[in-house]
Amino acid sequence: MIRRKNSLPIIFAFAAALLAVGAAPTPPSMNDILAASPHGDWRPLDAANMLVMQLPAGRVVIDLAPDFAPKTIANVKTLVREHYFDGAAIVRMQDNYVVQWARSDHHSLGAAKATIAPEFDRAIGRDITFDPLPDTDTYAPQTGFSAGFPAARDPAAGRTWLAHCYGMVGVGRDVAADSGNGRELYAVIGQSPRNLDRNVTLVGRVVEGIELLSALPRGTGALGFYEKPSQDVPITFIRLGSELPAAQQPKLEALRTDSTTFRALLQERRARPDPWFKHSPGHINVCNMPLPVRATK
Amino acid sequence: MIRRKNSLPIIFAFAAALLAVGAAPTPPSMNDILAASPHGDWRPLDAANMLVMQLPAGRVVIDLAPDFAPKTIANVKTLVREHYFDGAAIVRMQDNYVVQWARSDHHSLGAAKATIAPEFDRAIGRDITFDPLPDTDTYAPQTGFSAGFPAARDPAAGRTWLAHCYGMVGVGRDVAADSGNGRELYAVIGQSPRNLDRNVTLVGRVVEGIELLSALPRGTGALGFYEKPSQDVPITFIRLGSELPAAQQPKLEALRTDSTTFRALLQERRARPDPWFKHSPGHINVCNMPLPVRATK
Repeated sequence: MIRRKNSLPIIFAFAAALLAVGAAPTPPSMNDILAASPHGDWRPLDAANMLVMQLPAGRVVIDLAPDFAPKTIANVKTLVREHYFDGAAIVRMQDNYVVQWARSDHHSLGAAKATIAPEFDRAIGRDITFDPLPDTDTYAPQTGFSAGFPAARDPAAGRTWLAHCYGMVGVGRDVAADSGNGRELYAVIGQSPRNLDRNVTLVGRVVEGIELLSALPRGTGALGFYEKPSQDVPITFIRLGSELPAAQQPKLEALRTDSTTFRALLQERRARPDPWFKHSPGHINVCNMPLPVRATK
Repeated sequence: MIRRKNSLPIIFAFAAALLAVGAAPTPPSMNDILAASPHGDWRPLDAANMLVMQLPAGRVVIDLAPDFAPKTIANVKTLVREHYFDGAAIVRMQDNYVVQWARSDHHSLGAAKATIAPEFDRAIGRDITFDPLPDTDTYAPQTGFSAGFPAARDPAAGRTWLAHCYGMVGVGRDVAADSGNGRELYAVIGQSPRNLDRNVTLVGRVVEGIELLSALPRGTGALGFYEKPSQDVPITFIRLGSELPAAQQPKLEALRTDSTTFRALLQERRARPDPWFKHSPGHINVCNMPLPVRATK
């Protein structure tokens, strides 16, 4: 923040002073916790379960969530295999909300379906893990993490769903609930619009390159659509990670949310024992909790 | 969203169909509610209480919050009157977090103070209004709006503070609580970092031009600092609105949060009766509630 570029040395100096008078050492930071994590606390992400969106400025990688949206993701994969998005464009950028691609009339759906039964939520079940957060949430009785994604649950109703946090990717739709078929996708680039939870099928999360989307110019048309075709941001292609040549496939791993490292990170993020913090937040919202992804070591 | 550019006509067609079979008419949208608002539900923003940051791409207007941070704002105004920020730069852009200006060593503080007692929170009192929200919050016992800003309270402790929502502006500081003097300011450009509440003095909110900040390229250095001086985004000047020639002063008004219109808007945003929504969220977080500002009519 807020912190100056040189604040780290200041913190170290402060810690040294504390040590000099015999006080407790500086507690480990998020980076310390991640650096000390055992290999087994990370799980590899499957290239067959990723979308790679190539933009002129670089690539965006989306990890898919088939535990929540199997039918919609199957349709998206069909579109991708047909190269539906090649030569398409990012057409909408609404500040503090979403970035959206591509136009619904970009070209024919081919073998993909035009309508899909909504996958806005699903049954709680043994086939899906859930690592709960201890804190209350404005929108749901319970929040936590499922299959590496931010999620929410209503145990009384027996339902669970993905949460609209920063970087989550969903399928645009019209008024009809089954009209979201995947040819229009969006990513959240602002304050989590949790009012959309259970109203849209979420299909995954951006795990690399979100800054290539979030820094795009905001559209000046209604709902943030770009008003001139010249403003559209071209998409070179979208492929499944597994379709790319081996050397180009993303090799990423995610911190397991059931790991000791994640629990230590959660504790650190809730308490913020770092001496910079004068007031311990003592809580964390599901959309504020980091879900670390890194290049496979 | 999510919605296509042509979704509005679809909604109207749907409403017409409903009307045709005698069902309830389409409930008023946010835009309908604002369009129907009486003049008295808006309050003019005071040009003497605004910062105008001129960038090459346009201007950013910040409405200040003297009810929460009188001493810090007085120091910021001293810096502004001394033209401290003229020729300074935006030096940090951390994705999903904050944009920050200027460097602490930009030039001499002049008559401004180097340290200021922190104004991280304040006493609840009769001199400050509070329009509460009905929903629970992860970070505070109570949330709502004070003087047009998102705020939180702990009634048991008798304290209230501004909330780190999108667009809020705070003063960077080092480890020492009194080191935030206003020569480094930041604005929130991502998911609300509410963990910073009561840890930083917030001084206001961007009410015009946030998209000139939020779309800036992300810095690739530690904490999102720009690594090369050539990446810095120059600030032409920062002035108090009242220092500008009359024709250039921002003429803005904000919806009063104690107004009938705001209550109608709150009800609409919590329920989302629009037929696009299949699941009524039924709740709203303080950082998701719009705080409309418009050009004075």
